[in-house]
Amino acid sequence: MAGSPRRTAGRRLQLPLLCLLLQGATAILFAVFVRYNHETDAALWHWHNHSNADNEFYFRYPSFQDVHTMIFVGFGFLMVFLQRYGFSSVGFTFLSAAFALQWSTLVQGFFHSFHHGHIYVGVERAALASSPLSPSPSQPPSMINADFCAGAVLISFGAILGKTGPAQLLLMALLEVVLFGLNEFVLLSLLRVKDAGGSMTIHAFGAYFGLVLSRVLYRPQLEKSKHRQGSVYHSDLFAMIGTIFLWIFWPSFNSAPTALGDGQHRSALNTYYSLTASTLSTFALSALVGRDGRLDMVHIQNAALAGGVVVGTSAEMMLTPFGALVAGFLAGTVSTLGYKFFTPTLESKLKVQDTCGVHNLHGMPGVLGALLGVLVAGLATHEAYGDGLESVFPLLAKGQRSATSQAMHQLFGLFVTLIFASVGGSLGGLLLRLPFLDSPPDSQCYEDQVYWEVPGEHEDLAQGPLRAEELETRA
Amino acid sequence: MAGSPRRTAGRRLQLPLLCLLLQGATAILFAVFVRYNHETDAALWHWHNHSNADNEFYFRYPSFQDVHTMIFVGFGFLMVFLQRYGFSSVGFTFLSAAFALQWSTLVQGFFHSFHHGHIYVGVERAALASSPLSPSPSQPPSMINADFCAGAVLISFGAILGKTGPAQLLLMALLEVVLFGLNEFVLLSLLRVKDAGGSMTIHAFGAYFGLVLSRVLYRPQLEKSKHRQGSVYHSDLFAMIGTIFLWIFWPSFNSAPTALGDGQHRSALNTYYSLTASTLSTFALSALVGRDGRLDMVHIQNAALAGGVVVGTSAEMMLTPFGALVAGFLAGTVSTLGYKFFTPTLESKLKVQDTCGVHNLHGMPGVLGALLGVLVAGLATHEAYGDGLESVFPLLAKGQRSATSQAMHQLFGLFVTLIFASVGGSLGGLLLRLPFLDSPPDSQCYEDQVYWEVPGEHEDLAQGPLRAEELETRA
Amino acid sequence: MAGSPRRTAGRRLQLPLLCLLLQGATAILFAVFVRYNHETDAALWHWHNHSNADNEFYFRYPSFQDVHTMIFVGFGFLMVFLQRYGFSSVGFTFLSAAFALQWSTLVQGFFHSFHHGHIYVGVERAALASSPLSPSPSQPPSMINADFCAGAVLISFGAILGKTGPAQLLLMALLEVVLFGLNEFVLLSLLRVKDAGGSMTIHAFGAYFGLVLSRVLYRPQLEKSKHRQGSVYHSDLFAMIGTIFLWIFWPSFNSAPTALGDGQHRSALNTYYSLTASTLSTFALSALVGRDGRLDMVHIQNAALAGGVVVGTSAEMMLTPFGALVAGFLAGTVSTLGYKFFTPTLESKLKVQDTCGVHNLHGMPGVLGALLGVLVAGLATHEAYGDGLESVFPLLAKGQRSATSQAMHQLFGLFVTLIFASVGGSLGGLLLRLPFLDSPPDSQCYEDQVYWEVPGEHEDLAQGPLRAEELETRA
Repeated sequence: MAGSPRRTAGRRLQLPLLCLLLQGATAILFAVFVRYNHETDAALWHWHNHSNADNEFYFRYPSFQDVHTMIFVGFGFLMVFLQRYGFSSVGFTFLSAAFALQWSTLVQGFFHSFHHGHIYVGVERAALASSPLSPSPSQPPSMINADFCAGAVLISFGAILGKTGPAQLLLMALLEVVLFGLNEFVLLSLLRVKDAGGSMTIHAFGAYFGLVLSRVLYRPQLEKSKHRQGSVYHSDLFAMIGTIFLWIFWPSFNSAPTALGDGQHRSALNTYYSLTASTLSTFALSALVGRDGRLDMVHIQNAALAGGVVVGTSAEMMLTPFGALVAGFLAGTVSTLGYKFFTPTLESKLKVQDTCGVHNLHGMPGVLGALLGVLVAGLATHEAYGDGLESVFPLLAKGQRSATSQAMHQLFGLFVTLIFASVGGSLGGLLLRLPFLDSPPDSQCYEDQVYWEVPGEHEDLAQGPLRAEELETRA
Repeated sequence: MAGSPRRTAGRRLQLPLLCLLLQGATAILFAVFVRYNHETDAALWHWHNHSNADNEFYFRYPSFQDVHTMIFVGFGFLMVFLQRYGFSSVGFTFLSAAFALQWSTLVQGFFHSFHHGHIYVGVERAALASSPLSPSPSQPPSMINADFCAGAVLISFGAILGKTGPAQLLLMALLEVVLFGLNEFVLLSLLRVKDAGGSMTIHAFGAYFGLVLSRVLYRPQLEKSKHRQGSVYHSDLFAMIGTIFLWIFWPSFNSAPTALGDGQHRSALNTYYSLTASTLSTFALSALVGRDGRLDMVHIQNAALAGGVVVGTSAEMMLTPFGALVAGFLAGTVSTLGYKFFTPTLESKLKVQDTCGVHNLHGMPGVLGALLGVLVAGLATHEAYGDGLESVFPLLAKGQRSATSQAMHQLFGLFVTLIFASVGGSLGGLLLRLPFLDSPPDSQCYEDQVYWEVPGEHEDLAQGPLRAEELETRA
Repeated sequence: MAGSPRRTAGRRLQLPLLCLLLQGATAILFAVFVRYNHETDAALWHWHNHSNADNEFYFRYPSFQDVHTMIFVGFGFLMVFLQRYGFSSVGFTFLSAAFALQWSTLVQGFFHSFHHGHIYVGVERAALASSPLSPSPSQPPSMINADFCAGAVLISFGAILGKTGPAQLLLMALLEVVLFGLNEFVLLSLLRVKDAGGSMTIHAFGAYFGLVLSRVLYRPQLEKSKHRQGSVYHSDLFAMIGTIFLWIFWPSFNSAPTALGDGQHRSALNTYYSLTASTLSTFALSALVGRDGRLDMVHIQNAALAGGVVVGTSAEMMLTPFGALVAGFLAGTVSTLGYKFFTPTLESKLKVQDTCGVHNLHGMPGVLGALLGVLVAGLATHEAYGDGLESVFPLLAKGQRSATSQAMHQLFGLFVTLIFASVGGSLGGLLLRLPFLDSPPDSQCYEDQVYWEVPGEHEDLAQGPLRAEELETRA
């Protein structure tokens, strides 16, 4: 059933060996480098004689769990919309994100908190938001940030969904996590850019990394799998599980790593309003451009979320509720129009096959969000922030930077991100084109049966998904 | 495929224009009126020199996120049970709730906290529960209360599900949010009624508003769509996602806006036990009245939740765990029997077509919950509440009201709610009967294809959902 | 349609009467015994003049809600994988867990906090983890622990899924909750064993109780229902909802009842890393042993979770992040191999029909987790824990036990658990074999239609699930 014997034997061992190799390597690195931080270590915590109620856990863990839900439930089910790729969508999300959590703990640890030869871990590197001036050794890598990095990997996955095997995805994660950590280090620690919800570091980075990678993996014969590229009724409902969980918890995503107190509260509030506006504009635009005024599930599932992406940089700032509405409205509009008009062009003209439309949900709204951050940072004043300026823009509070200078640094951060994403995506594409990897043939894209035991075809699907003539064409 | 050209053109523009108009109007009102409150504003928060750990965010946000999940995941998927209306159920829930969040921020702001020309927003209007005597300007409208109001809109939606278009739903929300705010203002600020979990303000109000509205929209020819009114196997499983998320998070719903400390803790505990009892009684009654003793998914999906509705008023009070069990048991019983015996009568005798049976889940249990609140308030003593009386019944603690007087006010609050709901539902019905709106024809009710691009009919559904003869009958 | 009239009449009344009887009994016992504790009672809380921010609610409720989600969404949907048993899987989970919450409140109250004739309830018995030396009367039974007990009941349910009726399940819960409480009392209060996440008390106990019970209920003719024992495409996607929610919230499960502060933080962190490792090893092993290197959904849905089970005892201890990775890796490996090689043997040789493979997910990883707890407890030193030793191992801190002695007590705790589970499962099996109960005939196992009104067979399923010849064979 599965092509030539050589290929079968190769596939049989490729994924297991890669999983075991990567797990073995991270385990050894954990043994050597990773330690509990002062909030998770029994001796250190009690030595400081803290009140247990002050443990960072109580201020961050609920937000962390919302983020965790978004990564695994949200992204996982959002990609289940494909009619024959549900197992792979949710399964490979699960696999690659699980690996990314381990690997990014190490990478971010080396960049942000390699101290006396050790990496210290906890739910959040508490000091980050409040004193980014000195990337002090007390900033441990965190569960929240590991999940953020996994989010970027999954965004890239969205661009190549259905056209890559699990071993390819693990290799992509291996590379992308390193570049994510490097880009984040440059932006947050060197340029002192603000980007709590990651419009730049997560969304724009993940999207353009994936799009460039998809360009390198361009398949001129992809129409051979076109009949599997759409959704069916129930797969669209499964995808809405992903959409809704992403939508409701996005306020937690943007607020999870900010300064405690008003910063976290304001970030959640701004994101909440921005998302309501992107939802309204998405419905409006979808009906406007739809055939006979009908709504399109692809728009609702994706563009309605653009309001979360677009305030990723600025939600922490004094954006105002009105600003949040306007930003969300624009993001939903741009994203919906992107699905309708830009995605086809992207494939026909630029040879970028973007399965999930990540350019519309993460790419353009991410760039827009970075520019909004430039604007709002440039407008920051001592009057507007009062003593809270120290938490949001510490360099401004200390007089080491003007608002305009901060805005220019923000803009430069976007530029750096796009460079890292493009170069990284190119490298990733070359890596994933290695001929012995588990890439599916052109006629078997978007098809679970290449990688999974698929049950009960004859029972709930009138037409068998893998017809005889297709099987013969498999390499 | 979509009827006469005039109708198509009308539909094409109706929803987009309405969305854009409403979004434009709320954006302008936000610009003029809405400001960060003292917990979300950088300058105000730091000016008060608070400890960040004291920010209301840490006491309310986890509960808010549970409520948010209930509104969008819970209500959204609960209504997916219809075989051909899943896109509309979850999609229109999404649209109308997103609009309601914006609009109710404004309406509740005008009623509760219009102060120096501004509305101040945060996660919760902290002072509400602890000092309802003076509706002081420090009570900002809140994310939690905006979600509560969206809940009432979605309850009303349940009564007319499948028989109204998205533009109609937005207009309903436009009207209902105003009346919700007005009713809530009368009850909480003028009558000083207690109703933390909204047995009256949310459930009874939303249900009777929707039922009266459904009466006005009565369709004598609805049997033309009867074949689409039931569920299929997988749509019932999707609906159980909604049920279970509503069930598990209902303790957070009833406790989200109460006084901090024991009040929030007790509300959650009472709701938790009440729901276990309504689940047991629902299974008992469903099997008892079922054909051959079989259970009915409609009962399990809905009546098992009645335990959350029935303690909406009294969960905050000293109901006792035993009282919670009894209340939940009665609510599950009444609700299940309502589905079996009352819903058919409601349609045949009173001409109220109640798609989701909101009368059984929200109407009767809401009224029962209000009456339970009358009883428990009337039994309040200084012995039972100690110094906690100040938080739950401040007027009793101050000697400005007797327990009996509080009980009478509670009862009058129910009466006021039913009046507002009935008048509002009548007005809403007249509004939604405007002939140019996007109401589906009698033969096209409960059908996604009227409003959505629906994929893959031929692939996973043996029978096409929209047959030729039906298409010809479309207006 | 449903067999002989006698049977129908019996079934019609059996479930309703049992539900009403059990609900009536627990309600009476609640009236007599159950009271608010000092954190949920208005008078008691305010009498102590606490700050509201100190209420246990704020430290435990977010974790409780994650656990609650795992029990009802996680376990409920995990078992929906069967093609024709989705209503029963999620519905009977709902029913039996709801009953278990009430009943275990009483049972655990009698064992742990029966004081002056009353049982005091709240979200968590706060004192448990920090001072297990004296099982003081201030340890109330808790919502978290009631949910834990429901978890054990659902694990046992997994072993007999599809082969038992709802009345049988309620009787099983009635017995199992008592034995769970007794076993937990012996371990935590008498042996002073540590087992925060319940590797022993929840997972091993629930699994072996269910497996022994399944042995007693052995059906030699079960192959008559074999065609319904597998999944279909969409039922596997529903099951992944369960898997992913269990996976993301397991860190909250293992940390919910630990000591506050570093203990809760560390437990969550260890579990988080352990789960990533069991996910990688599960994918590796599944592909390695799969036909043509294909992945098997059964493995991914279940074995990937073994990393949460295996650190249930030791997550609270100074396991180290590296230790968590190794533990998770081993658990995923053992669990996947168990599904492939051990489950078939279990049925053919030992006559244990384990529907969900609970031996692989909860049995072996639970025992492994207990042994890991023995090891990590035996390695405990004052250096490693500092002043935190008091929270994790109070008897060691007080010099009343050596680390080796604690390890031996842990090992003996596992032994006691296996005895209680085996004896209890045997008793349970004898109870459930009572001939008048609602057990399905051999040809009607794994079939919703025995207990539920099932809609729309003809519409989305090509082949009717209940064929005429099958109906004739029903007893």
